[in-house]
Amino acid sequence: MKRVHSLEAEPTHSVWDRSLEPRLRIAPGDEVLIACVDASGGQVRPGMSTTEYLGIDRTRIHALTGPIWIDGAEPGDVLQVEVFSTRHTGWGWSSVVEGLGLLKDRFREPYLFHWNLGSDSTSSLAPAIVPVRPFLGVMGVAPAEHGSFRTRPPGVFGGNMDVRELCEGSKLYLPVFNRGALFSCGDGHAAQGDGEVCINGIECPLNVTLRFRLHKQMNLDAPLVEASDSQLLDSLGDAWIVVETGTALYDAARAATGRMIDLLMSRWGLSAVHAYILCSVAMRLRLSQVVNEPVHTVTAAMSKKILPARELFPIQ
Amino acid sequence: MKRVHSLEAEPTHSVWDRSLEPRLRIAPGDEVLIACVDASGGQVRPGMSTTEYLGIDRTRIHALTGPIWIDGAEPGDVLQVEVFSTRHTGWGWSSVVEGLGLLKDRFREPYLFHWNLGSDSTSSLAPAIVPVRPFLGVMGVAPAEHGSFRTRPPGVFGGNMDVRELCEGSKLYLPVFNRGALFSCGDGHAAQGDGEVCINGIECPLNVTLRFRLHKQMNLDAPLVEASDSQLLDSLGDAWIVVETGTALYDAARAATGRMIDLLMSRWGLSAVHAYILCSVAMRLRLSQVVNEPVHTVTAAMSKKILPARELFPIQ
Repeated sequence: MKRVHSLEAEPTHSVWDRSLEPRLRIAPGDEVLIACVDASGGQVRPGMSTTEYLGIDRTRIHALTGPIWIDGAEPGDVLQVEVFSTRHTGWGWSSVVEGLGLLKDRFREPYLFHWNLGSDSTSSLAPAIVPVRPFLGVMGVAPAEHGSFRTRPPGVFGGNMDVRELCEGSKLYLPVFNRGALFSCGDGHAAQGDGEVCINGIECPLNVTLRFRLHKQMNLDAPLVEASDSQLLDSLGDAWIVVETGTALYDAARAATGRMIDLLMSRWGLSAVHAYILCSVAMRLRLSQVVNEPVHTVTAAMSKKILPARELFPIQ
Repeated sequence: MKRVHSLEAEPTHSVWDRSLEPRLRIAPGDEVLIACVDASGGQVRPGMSTTEYLGIDRTRIHALTGPIWIDGAEPGDVLQVEVFSTRHTGWGWSSVVEGLGLLKDRFREPYLFHWNLGSDSTSSLAPAIVPVRPFLGVMGVAPAEHGSFRTRPPGVFGGNMDVRELCEGSKLYLPVFNRGALFSCGDGHAAQGDGEVCINGIECPLNVTLRFRLHKQMNLDAPLVEASDSQLLDSLGDAWIVVETGTALYDAARAATGRMIDLLMSRWGLSAVHAYILCSVAMRLRLSQVVNEPVHTVTAAMSKKILPARELFPIQ
């Protein structure tokens, strides 16, 4: 029989560690209403200044809720996590932090930006209208290895994957490495572009409802997503796309993002840091070709739905 | 006054070279009906065997049509290329070639596959239904440098970009490096996934109508695409997405592609080489996060529209 549990955010944890004591024990098939604070663990507040932001304790990031013990889960099983609902609280933030982000050498100046969030979009970065599709940047199970591991790098156990398709209606499948699986989650994003280039999506507290199921002894090497379009509104529609080619994909991604920022600045009048943040919350990054040796091509796309209409080149 | 020209495919050329004699001279605003042979230069024919395929002259790839001289074009200008229509002839091919492709170490056995193409889709690789959206893999202008350059690597002049969004309704903007611009195109693809992982899309002859315009002395460093959704049907819809994390994007892309192939084989019964080809013509490759150091996450997605419904995990 399905049961519905709820789990408060506090006390959060900020490491993956198979020895952490479970905060909730559930049966397969159960739903859990999970409160997640924002990735800062509630340290960032509406109205906080950039100067105050510099003083937060970064060791508390990502401030995850969990672990949740799933009865009967054993190494070799697959944990299915179905995302039923993801509710933000109307506010979020994005930042630039020295030494982090895809363009860390271009953007060194710390900056904190606050968003007012509607149910479907936000116009805080006007003239851009950013679609809002909340998802958890971090969902994972305890790793196989003994020890405490900071949460920034994702892995085969899931974790800080920042896969934007994990919004309402989607399912995540994770390999289980420990008895009880030991699932934790957090790092709510009201929106995020591919790449999360500035280091943040729209960071926000999220109240989520997840349903857990167990598939016994099925082969799965790493996370798999069954994405639902029902809430995704994935279509790019009409779009501006910069095409960058380079010998390394990472460099091509950096160049493409840099050119998209330049375009947003020169044609839509955004400041450099606002353009960077807009890319981080709304741009798509694709590997257009990875075979035309010795170079690869990355495309960075911004939907025309997000920006006011502009003719970038004079109409003739 | 707009004029409409037409340009036969032959004689094709297979290098970028600013000293090539223009085959057609047009004015800005003119349209050109351009015939393009397939990337092999017409050497691959319907019904050809893999053994025969091994004997083709690969120095003739990509067998481009052009150059076209655009009156008044000068270095520093931007050439606008609007894609009005792209018509295939009902047939195409894809291949695996030893030493080429994203998974060249896994797929060493040469293989030639033939497609029968409908106007909107092809079921040649049943049970997969592959959407057909023809575009030119190669569109470019003569590079700034003197000399003859093989066409495989793309660059700031465009070329072999394999950007699948360049289908009907889209516009390509290219920097001009030489008087007359010297535009050439070819490498028709009836469909292609992000990455073109096996080295081919659905290679095919294409008859295209392009309209050329000139924007005098505008700053553009590298190709820019203004993508139209009208023919794109870009929405992924419901999808299966594998999530791979690694220290290098290229390695993560390889791992994600490999896992998608495994999934197509184990759950949809495709042979390894057919799964590889299906990925090459229909899979999406995204950079989900490029900032969670020291690792990056690539996602490979296959729309559920392409494959018969399967529950990958038992329904409970």
